[in-house]
Amino acid sequence: MEFRTDKLLHGGDYNPEQWLKRPDILAKDLDMLEESGCNVVSLGIFSWSTLEPEEGVFHLEWLKEIIDKLYQRGISTILATPSGARPKWMADKYPEVLRVDETGHRNHFGFRHNHCYTSPVYREKVHTINKKLAQEVATHPGVILWHISNEYGGECYCPLCQDAFRKWLKKKYQTIENLNDRWCTTFWSHTYNSFNQIEAPSKIGETQLHALNLDWKRFVTHQTADFIHAEIAAVRDGGSDLPTTANLMHYFGSLDYFKIAKEIDVVSWDTYPTWHKEAVIDTAYDNGMCHDLMRSLKGKPFFQMESCPTSTNWQSVSKLKKPGMLFAQSMQAIAHGGEGALYFQIRQSRGASEKFHGAVIDHYGGNDTRVFKEVSKVGATLKELKELAGTTMDSPVAMIYDWDSQWAMEDSQGPRNKGLHYLENLLKYYRGFRKQGISVDLIDQTCDVEKYKILVLPMVYMFKEGFAEKVCTFVENGGTLITSYWSGIADDTDRCYLEGTPHGLMDVLGIRSTEIDGLYDWEENTFVPAEGNELGLDQTYTCKYLCDLVELRGAKSLMTYGKDFYAGYAALTVNEYGKGRAWYVAADADKDFFADFLKKVLEENQISCGVKGDIPDTLEITVRESKEARYYLYQNFGTEAVQIPVPEKEASWLYGSGEEKLEVYGLAVAKITK
Amino acid sequence: MEFRTDKLLHGGDYNPEQWLKRPDILAKDLDMLEESGCNVVSLGIFSWSTLEPEEGVFHLEWLKEIIDKLYQRGISTILATPSGARPKWMADKYPEVLRVDETGHRNHFGFRHNHCYTSPVYREKVHTINKKLAQEVATHPGVILWHISNEYGGECYCPLCQDAFRKWLKKKYQTIENLNDRWCTTFWSHTYNSFNQIEAPSKIGETQLHALNLDWKRFVTHQTADFIHAEIAAVRDGGSDLPTTANLMHYFGSLDYFKIAKEIDVVSWDTYPTWHKEAVIDTAYDNGMCHDLMRSLKGKPFFQMESCPTSTNWQSVSKLKKPGMLFAQSMQAIAHGGEGALYFQIRQSRGASEKFHGAVIDHYGGNDTRVFKEVSKVGATLKELKELAGTTMDSPVAMIYDWDSQWAMEDSQGPRNKGLHYLENLLKYYRGFRKQGISVDLIDQTCDVEKYKILVLPMVYMFKEGFAEKVCTFVENGGTLITSYWSGIADDTDRCYLEGTPHGLMDVLGIRSTEIDGLYDWEENTFVPAEGNELGLDQTYTCKYLCDLVELRGAKSLMTYGKDFYAGYAALTVNEYGKGRAWYVAADADKDFFADFLKKVLEENQISCGVKGDIPDTLEITVRESKEARYYLYQNFGTEAVQIPVPEKEASWLYGSGEEKLEVYGLAVAKITK
Amino acid sequence: MEFRTDKLLHGGDYNPEQWLKRPDILAKDLDMLEESGCNVVSLGIFSWSTLEPEEGVFHLEWLKEIIDKLYQRGISTILATPSGARPKWMADKYPEVLRVDETGHRNHFGFRHNHCYTSPVYREKVHTINKKLAQEVATHPGVILWHISNEYGGECYCPLCQDAFRKWLKKKYQTIENLNDRWCTTFWSHTYNSFNQIEAPSKIGETQLHALNLDWKRFVTHQTADFIHAEIAAVRDGGSDLPTTANLMHYFGSLDYFKIAKEIDVVSWDTYPTWHKEAVIDTAYDNGMCHDLMRSLKGKPFFQMESCPTSTNWQSVSKLKKPGMLFAQSMQAIAHGGEGALYFQIRQSRGASEKFHGAVIDHYGGNDTRVFKEVSKVGATLKELKELAGTTMDSPVAMIYDWDSQWAMEDSQGPRNKGLHYLENLLKYYRGFRKQGISVDLIDQTCDVEKYKILVLPMVYMFKEGFAEKVCTFVENGGTLITSYWSGIADDTDRCYLEGTPHGLMDVLGIRSTEIDGLYDWEENTFVPAEGNELGLDQTYTCKYLCDLVELRGAKSLMTYGKDFYAGYAALTVNEYGKGRAWYVAADADKDFFADFLKKVLEENQISCGVKGDIPDTLEITVRESKEARYYLYQNFGTEAVQIPVPEKEASWLYGSGEEKLEVYGLAVAKITK
Repeated sequence: MEFRTDKLLHGGDYNPEQWLKRPDILAKDLDMLEESGCNVVSLGIFSWSTLEPEEGVFHLEWLKEIIDKLYQRGISTILATPSGARPKWMADKYPEVLRVDETGHRNHFGFRHNHCYTSPVYREKVHTINKKLAQEVATHPGVILWHISNEYGGECYCPLCQDAFRKWLKKKYQTIENLNDRWCTTFWSHTYNSFNQIEAPSKIGETQLHALNLDWKRFVTHQTADFIHAEIAAVRDGGSDLPTTANLMHYFGSLDYFKIAKEIDVVSWDTYPTWHKEAVIDTAYDNGMCHDLMRSLKGKPFFQMESCPTSTNWQSVSKLKKPGMLFAQSMQAIAHGGEGALYFQIRQSRGASEKFHGAVIDHYGGNDTRVFKEVSKVGATLKELKELAGTTMDSPVAMIYDWDSQWAMEDSQGPRNKGLHYLENLLKYYRGFRKQGISVDLIDQTCDVEKYKILVLPMVYMFKEGFAEKVCTFVENGGTLITSYWSGIADDTDRCYLEGTPHGLMDVLGIRSTEIDGLYDWEENTFVPAEGNELGLDQTYTCKYLCDLVELRGAKSLMTYGKDFYAGYAALTVNEYGKGRAWYVAADADKDFFADFLKKVLEENQISCGVKGDIPDTLEITVRESKEARYYLYQNFGTEAVQIPVPEKEASWLYGSGEEKLEVYGLAVAKITK
Repeated sequence: MEFRTDKLLHGGDYNPEQWLKRPDILAKDLDMLEESGCNVVSLGIFSWSTLEPEEGVFHLEWLKEIIDKLYQRGISTILATPSGARPKWMADKYPEVLRVDETGHRNHFGFRHNHCYTSPVYREKVHTINKKLAQEVATHPGVILWHISNEYGGECYCPLCQDAFRKWLKKKYQTIENLNDRWCTTFWSHTYNSFNQIEAPSKIGETQLHALNLDWKRFVTHQTADFIHAEIAAVRDGGSDLPTTANLMHYFGSLDYFKIAKEIDVVSWDTYPTWHKEAVIDTAYDNGMCHDLMRSLKGKPFFQMESCPTSTNWQSVSKLKKPGMLFAQSMQAIAHGGEGALYFQIRQSRGASEKFHGAVIDHYGGNDTRVFKEVSKVGATLKELKELAGTTMDSPVAMIYDWDSQWAMEDSQGPRNKGLHYLENLLKYYRGFRKQGISVDLIDQTCDVEKYKILVLPMVYMFKEGFAEKVCTFVENGGTLITSYWSGIADDTDRCYLEGTPHGLMDVLGIRSTEIDGLYDWEENTFVPAEGNELGLDQTYTCKYLCDLVELRGAKSLMTYGKDFYAGYAALTVNEYGKGRAWYVAADADKDFFADFLKKVLEENQISCGVKGDIPDTLEITVRESKEARYYLYQNFGTEAVQIPVPEKEASWLYGSGEEKLEVYGLAVAKITK
Repeated sequence: MEFRTDKLLHGGDYNPEQWLKRPDILAKDLDMLEESGCNVVSLGIFSWSTLEPEEGVFHLEWLKEIIDKLYQRGISTILATPSGARPKWMADKYPEVLRVDETGHRNHFGFRHNHCYTSPVYREKVHTINKKLAQEVATHPGVILWHISNEYGGECYCPLCQDAFRKWLKKKYQTIENLNDRWCTTFWSHTYNSFNQIEAPSKIGETQLHALNLDWKRFVTHQTADFIHAEIAAVRDGGSDLPTTANLMHYFGSLDYFKIAKEIDVVSWDTYPTWHKEAVIDTAYDNGMCHDLMRSLKGKPFFQMESCPTSTNWQSVSKLKKPGMLFAQSMQAIAHGGEGALYFQIRQSRGASEKFHGAVIDHYGGNDTRVFKEVSKVGATLKELKELAGTTMDSPVAMIYDWDSQWAMEDSQGPRNKGLHYLENLLKYYRGFRKQGISVDLIDQTCDVEKYKILVLPMVYMFKEGFAEKVCTFVENGGTLITSYWSGIADDTDRCYLEGTPHGLMDVLGIRSTEIDGLYDWEENTFVPAEGNELGLDQTYTCKYLCDLVELRGAKSLMTYGKDFYAGYAALTVNEYGKGRAWYVAADADKDFFADFLKKVLEENQISCGVKGDIPDTLEITVRESKEARYYLYQNFGTEAVQIPVPEKEASWLYGSGEEKLEVYGLAVAKITK
């Protein structure tokens, strides 16, 4: 099912169930939503105890009435299923709905994510309420999308889950001999005689059988996806054929979002960057990369479901968004291919844990606040940019971000237990491309790679079956590959590859990785340019954390280490293979290295974003396209106004212009008609 | 019941039950107690297993005998009830007396504070032993005061306590609808259908319903007070009408001491400052403020029940008290209105966890130790100062220190979860007044405020019902109010006030607080003086942690922020209201600001301590009074001898003199006959 | 039983059970073992699930076959009992074999050390497999030694263990009154009425009764030793009379190795220094001291059972051993009296937690790796040094390293809970002696001291019964004693000594310790030389952490403190007693002090290692002897080649020579025929 909208979404989470005794406030909310240019709200996320105050007793009228009033003001509803938090009566009557921790103790009622995904009782209760909502509420024309539950996450170790895990393993491995072999259970005498003997990982049991840990994580994703599937089946049973979303969270460590995304129709996500903690441009790159991941999950437009209108209340320090920052963040969601910018939350709650979280309408309640005015400006701008809705992005570069590989790498006891700095390393590649205005997709190993010109494999520790072959073909056919240290080490049950690594790519790369050295936090080495190297690199860069020692097997060395017993060993190599070229970066070099190196690689591949002149350091340029037009979006994440490099082709200006300097946190949008 | 003494108390905790097999040592103790000028000891605190070695078998003779021998030497006894630690036989026979933690697991026997305050069995056992002690031991003329249990604290989550909590809630809220409304339970669907559904907060259940957390803390105080009440009822049942005390602990976070103090006749407390860790004057201010809190709890003289003759054994580093420090600390207890300085402990125990805690008599056992000599000097001096017993203190300034408000503020997820620095902020106000020799009372929101000239509300996050009105009246009648950021935010079930804050004081202050910015630890802003401001402030000060952004609604701005997007916004304001004036301090300025600002405010209010000339920075001056006389106590907490500013009125010298410089850690006492 | 070998051992842990499906790899292993000069492997350590895949079903053939193939290549086998990790079927059928934690919860299956040492079922299962191995496998002539279990450690708190603990206590104390008295249970009313009431220490019960904690630790050693005893009895039951070892671990905190060593025939240990983290010479001293401890445990040669051929995988950073480091570490094991240098592991496992631990053969599998070549060099060198096998070492100095004392000191709440820096202090003494080429034994209080010339007691907090007397006699007879602060404080149930400390040594030392000051991490004091002091000390040194204040009772003061109120107090004293002399070091002085001071003390005692000229700072010289010869081993742990001081007597060179400079990490061995 497709989710299509002819406007850019603006709005947020709205919790009128907290104010049912205050009709004056509910009425004022409608006025203020309209005034701020909101065109959508999410409803019902935490309403279960209001919707079903006692088992089987349903109160849906208030919700229908609010949806209707919103609709009359031109405001649509994203309707939530309420499974993210359940009523107390349910926990009391059916304790099995509560989670059990890894030591075997069942939680008390409380918090949010505290339910067993496997429990038949919980699934039944969710089915009933979801179906009811579909039958009686989602039929309203104001409802445009399902918001399935809220921020899925967490694990349960109850007997029902353990049993489901064993069944999942049996299906995957067929025989226990096969599982023993793949998991290397002879280590420490942990051989299983039957699937019935298997227990989930536990800090008071097994934590060192990494294949078990990894399969457990995969099972958690599987079971969560299965639960989502059941939630959606319930609304379909209720007759609703509206599209669905689930709000995802950043580079969330506990679920493989590539698998989760398959269950839903459109990706949305919740973004809470710590703006003003580091330089704004640094935060912007991190946030931008995550937008790109969300866009890549389904290879389709997504939207920002939650963000904070000003300071959050749960970070260590609740910093106000400075003037203009909210605008810049909202526009960045659009600039990276998003279809809207929504907030958590429309109105601040009076009590409980999120009462100090920023909101469109605060406890004071006036429309004369700084935040309300900034929200209104976002609303007005999104209306002006309406034609961007439905346009897409086209990336010449793909970078592998694979949950399985990351899980395996970070769980294993390896070259640097104190920290591999994986995301930090990824971001350095990302910045290198983005600084040139080049869009990057973040894909996993199962994705198609043929449509890209450059494929980046930073620390892809685990190679799934067939992946190395796919990469070889990509290079053979003329693609450019960039691989790094700590890649191709283990197979997909975390068994190390024998006979040399990076597994399957030694010929493509023309090297073999022989040893890897861990550096203490206070240590560093350098990348020294080889004289006359073909890229013309002429700076010395620092590197940290991990230094791979490679043996050259045909590759050329462009840079070498400057220190330690491996001074002079290759640090950057390139190899010709078929019609393509394959690079190997042996250590975690600094961001200047990646900026310089990737600029050269882009030039070599004749890839550019098509603007005149150099791009200032703190300016982000992205490009969205439709059949008819190409849009250049410019955002200034620096500390001073900057002159922007206009498109090479003739352009009109949809927002701002290319003449004056672009102010701090400002936006300009150029349009080139095809 | 009043506790009256015609001398200043000197002595400490004494544990002869550890030495019953060593009559030689017990005899030596008596000699050394006398030699060191001790006139009182606390007995029986941890004696239960000696007093009742088996259930119902009592051995009280040894205790009576020791009390008698002490009495013959002129040494009184403070008799403890032994409930602070119970015998093993009781835990074995009645497991219900042991505590249960928040996850539902019952403790094993051990440590000290490990009993359920609700358990009927425990209450019965305590009643029996307390009554027995009252009947058979407290009748001795040497006994002058009851020491009820020891350092009350801690929580129990057993079913009996959970049930008592539910009853307490039902009594407070009457209906579950009312509770749901006050607790804002619709948030995350946590609505209760009945009181029976309520569970105590738990890290494996609910922690984010702040009103629940707050009421649980209140219940813990309630139940502890009820337990104390029962303990005292038992000694009354035994026929004793001696006054009672309980030894309190610093700014103890878990019990509302204003409520606990109501149960007892005289406040005493245990003070263990980390002298010589920071500058001694800094530690002295902190310790002095706590003395003033203890004095304010009942608005009556108190005494120092425990302190360490030299180094403690449980702090991270056990630093010796340098020569003179013990004297200075003991005298400070008197200088702040105390009736005595006692120690933990008279004789070091040979084994278990406190064997290396400093004591009057150490393992070596001689009277030729440095510590014993210093103790003896304290004893001699307290005799010289005898006439101070029964004199009182009079404070023109009161500062709110309210447990409920602090609990709510520190539990909430708000503008700075990394730390609000509340006590640190309070101390800066305190120092500002104390530097001028002005006494400060620390009171809670229920206390009477009319008798004060200046009322300070630093970070009073929660306003209880009627409090704002009381403050308005205070200003209207001519009082000076000083309020700060993060005040008047929430009501007494932690529901945020709507329509503007500080709630109820916007008119008095002439401002509205609009937003609050959290600063990282490494950030700061400044307070810049407005030209020609009425206080003549002319310095720039730094501020940290939290910056409030106010809208002026009639107040004058005397200082403004120097940086960030709110540079130029008001940072210090004043407003005329009725016959009084109201100040607002918008951020956590440095201690120099408070020193300068409060000096001006005192001058404006014509409040002074009545000495000639300026007061040196490290000199503390306090004033005690009787009907006949006024006593100026001078203490030097600096690193050099200083000249002291003598009283404006003619004075005689009770101790030391005003002529020579006052030596480091020294004391001088001037007396003005009225 | 004696373990005798006519060669130096070289080899390591080998886990062929992981590769039974890969005969090609097993065959290659044999070739590579031979090529690298390995002459021994440890087999079967984690093989239980392969040896007994189902209860009572044994598969031993594969093991016998491998032992035989190894034997044919001249490679011996150290045969392990498999009790370090048990099969899953056992945990499922007999849950009692799994450990219970201090809160009373039983572990799940997993990890390694996870079995109850008391469980009759576990003991029976171990007996069966051990006996079987003895009967059917150990009979092969290739087997030379038993490797009893693996790295014993850990605790169990199950009812069976608790009961055994109570029985052990009853046997030790006879009556509960005696126990109460020794444990000082009157403190906090913890008196026991019977042994049945006693529970093990627990964080949810008792942790503050230090004598209980200490006896629990002793019981854990006792029960572990008893388990080892039972393991060995099983192999004897099986008819094997081969000698036994157990692999120990560094200064392992949980077992008293002096007691464990009594159960086995030869000590071996596993050493994993973090080379290249600090200066290599610092790590070398630490590792060297531990070798000397291992040698001292039985006063006999030992060997290095495990070490890593390159980087480990479980430290925070897995640093490669730089070229030559493996050689230097292996040779140091020999230089300190060891009979061999073995590795963990021969071949890297493919999966689970140690797959990235360094190995002789890595995943790549070639003999052309840097590591394999370095291992082969070690193999070749050990063959050249063959005649060192069976030679011994003779130490003029003994230093007390007593587990009981360390446990008591570190558990007690005392002068510095933030850290006593005990091992750091010990190492400073050790370096002072070792810098002069003097060998040091590390002994406990029960060892014989008469054979030494110098006896060092650094921070011997606890004096066992009779120890002080033994030390007095030692000095009286002409020995030199060096004692320090925090010595002789408590008896062997952690009861403080009364009437002055160091207990029993005040006459010998001519001082009494009066107070001890704890210093914060940022504080320090100094040792200032007294003019004309008899040792000619003329430098000022810093000291940290703890400063003892002593009263001179006949001793001479050679150095005094430079700061604080105890400036001028004695910091280093000496006293004549009988024919000997006794030194007292009052504080934790820096390593330069110990270097200078101990050099003088050695000169005074006319102790030298017998080389010409000064010993360079980073050169280690050790001496091994046989009846016929004396061997000087030189190792360079510095960063530059150094000239070595050759022996005073005429020598031949077994390895290297005295002529050229000794290269970094290099070895030279001189031989003097007697």
